[in-house]
Amino acid sequence: MSTTVSPLAPTHVPDMPVIAGVKLATAAAGIRYKGRTDVLLAVMDKGTAVAGVFTQSKCPSAPVEWCRAVLKGGKARALVVNSGNANAFTGKTGRQATALTAAIAAKALGCSRNEVFLASTGVIGEPLDATKFNGVLGTLAEQATPSEWMSAAKAIMTTDTFPKVATATVKLGRAKVTINGMAKGSGMIAPDMATMLSFVFTDAPITPGALQSLLKTHVEDTFNAVTVDGDTSTSDTLLAFATGAAASNGAPKISRASDPRLKAFAKAFRAVLADLAEQVARDGEGARKLVEIIVEGAVSKISARRIAMSIANSPLVKTAIAGEDANWGRVVMAVGKAGEPANRDKLSISFNGIRVARRGARDPSYDEAKVSAAMKNPTIQIKVALGLGKGRDRVLTCDLTKEYVAINGDYRS
Amino acid sequence: MSTTVSPLAPTHVPDMPVIAGVKLATAAAGIRYKGRTDVLLAVMDKGTAVAGVFTQSKCPSAPVEWCRAVLKGGKARALVVNSGNANAFTGKTGRQATALTAAIAAKALGCSRNEVFLASTGVIGEPLDATKFNGVLGTLAEQATPSEWMSAAKAIMTTDTFPKVATATVKLGRAKVTINGMAKGSGMIAPDMATMLSFVFTDAPITPGALQSLLKTHVEDTFNAVTVDGDTSTSDTLLAFATGAAASNGAPKISRASDPRLKAFAKAFRAVLADLAEQVARDGEGARKLVEIIVEGAVSKISARRIAMSIANSPLVKTAIAGEDANWGRVVMAVGKAGEPANRDKLSISFNGIRVARRGARDPSYDEAKVSAAMKNPTIQIKVALGLGKGRDRVLTCDLTKEYVAINGDYRS
Repeated sequence: MSTTVSPLAPTHVPDMPVIAGVKLATAAAGIRYKGRTDVLLAVMDKGTAVAGVFTQSKCPSAPVEWCRAVLKGGKARALVVNSGNANAFTGKTGRQATALTAAIAAKALGCSRNEVFLASTGVIGEPLDATKFNGVLGTLAEQATPSEWMSAAKAIMTTDTFPKVATATVKLGRAKVTINGMAKGSGMIAPDMATMLSFVFTDAPITPGALQSLLKTHVEDTFNAVTVDGDTSTSDTLLAFATGAAASNGAPKISRASDPRLKAFAKAFRAVLADLAEQVARDGEGARKLVEIIVEGAVSKISARRIAMSIANSPLVKTAIAGEDANWGRVVMAVGKAGEPANRDKLSISFNGIRVARRGARDPSYDEAKVSAAMKNPTIQIKVALGLGKGRDRVLTCDLTKEYVAINGDYRS
Repeated sequence: MSTTVSPLAPTHVPDMPVIAGVKLATAAAGIRYKGRTDVLLAVMDKGTAVAGVFTQSKCPSAPVEWCRAVLKGGKARALVVNSGNANAFTGKTGRQATALTAAIAAKALGCSRNEVFLASTGVIGEPLDATKFNGVLGTLAEQATPSEWMSAAKAIMTTDTFPKVATATVKLGRAKVTINGMAKGSGMIAPDMATMLSFVFTDAPITPGALQSLLKTHVEDTFNAVTVDGDTSTSDTLLAFATGAAASNGAPKISRASDPRLKAFAKAFRAVLADLAEQVARDGEGARKLVEIIVEGAVSKISARRIAMSIANSPLVKTAIAGEDANWGRVVMAVGKAGEPANRDKLSISFNGIRVARRGARDPSYDEAKVSAAMKNPTIQIKVALGLGKGRDRVLTCDLTKEYVAINGDYRS
């Protein structure tokens, strides 16, 4: 947890409403950090549906393996999150730690261990002493209240400089339902996964299958379209919980993601994920610029995504942006190295709406002073038009600064 | 050209012998830099065979396209290299510049334009004023001498902090033949190509086809096994020239790379490429550590290469090394994100010969103080044993420092 808040932090933090059926509590269990909370317990009412997507890493953390296994049941009563230790690459000890944590939580709540979901974030490779949860989770279960959303979002932070929350209220049938989400970043962030830790809660009555389908659909253009450093974590976890409490207010029970009554909800759900994902990019380690990359005219959406990610993960593009340099030559390099169809002589590039290159050469109207002024903006949009087809995609990233190197050069020691 | 030489620069610079049939000259043509040479002309005797490998970028520079076209002839009389401007993404102007440069060189030497090879390195997207070569190349053709290897290696530098040369002398049949090479780095360096610019010369009599085959074989584990920042340049060019002058001393004429008489030569040729490639890693922008990554026990060599490159290109691994932190958790992350077969519970990792992790967890004999001391070494070897098969590979990279960010945040402006 840095002492300096990212200059890209949202200026407005929403008031987080309660979600019927969800209670939260946090504690300082001394997992790693001193003088701050590092454990979150979320308690859900009986009947809560759960869905999840996880890291694509071939070396996932023990909590990711735990969640994958218990997700099959589709039901959740508890979520236990700790920061400071990822319980990743901890072998048999790691599996024992997840089993013990789940047992402690299940006992505290009087539920099955298979209804307990776990997430850990922090250092990789250090054994996690799960006995520290003994007592702590019992107390948290008693203390949990519906209002602790901000303290929950703070307890799961590691190198994040601000807590990340988002909320939406929307009609489902004639009933009002609410979606609350939280996330943490901010290094080891790359696509092909559900980035780091994010938890979304709703009182909408949605079956596990429908919720899973919704999550899979919308993670693609939200969390999976964000990259900080191209480094996919071992611990990435995005879980969605639907308590169903709004059914008592007349919300219809939804069992298919394609149900037309879900349309407004799906849009709001996606907006919450997109908001959290953008906050993750805004809090990328050392970030001073939020960078939106739009690739259009590609042969397909997948091709546009690959090219956008090649630009977003290029250290040369990212350092140029840190230096407020509209170095479109490096954008060309990144387009070229993506391995996707591209024709240099059809390529156009603009920075914050100012076209700098077209048809494979510098724009004849190129005005260095005008572009340089635009690069001082904290938000930079790079738009690349390939002129080949209709494929379009958008990803978010941040610049690469000396602070990133400083943060990661001495994070562990 | 930096004023501070990389601390990883070789301590011994070889005396470069002459290569019969090759003459060199350099000049300050004012392409971009002030007060330094920026043009190299290499003049080869009639009958010189040429081979080349180039960037895999979909947006290659104009000189790369020129070389690809004229390489079909297999004969070379001249090589013109400029630093300061890459003549990349310059559209029609770029093609005109390469044609004009080749015409000027061909006139100066009385050869065909199809025997002139071109390479440019520097800023992308700026038009290259080829009229600056008018007069200059004629003078250089007159001044060229067999001994100017070090000044040649200096003229092609951009952000390089030291000139890169290598040499080998070896028997071909009963005759002594010589191989001289030079290269320049030092950012926008990534695999899947012949990294940036490198030129290798020999007096051995080898046909273009055999030389091309030799080059393709040995680039794979030399230049293509080096990465600085994962950013593949638009201009990467590796050319090999064989004058054949040693035939007059009795060297046999070689027309197949598989010719058993070529064995010693091939070994020496590979050693020259490997030496130059290592120097490129040693002069990676901002580099303070040379990092060798060995992956063994993979399911195949290709799989080992992908995993090694995932580690080598991970910003988190690279910043940890800059911070002298044996952060093997980040190595696990990079193994996991590579998408290749890996079993966490069989994984072992060592830093400079000290095993820190085995069978998916911290090594029981882990000694933080001992590992920390080893990380102060300017050369770091990371060895990952996957325990799955016999696939093995090795790549070279460097650490990611604040200096890399500083160099690339204000290179263009």
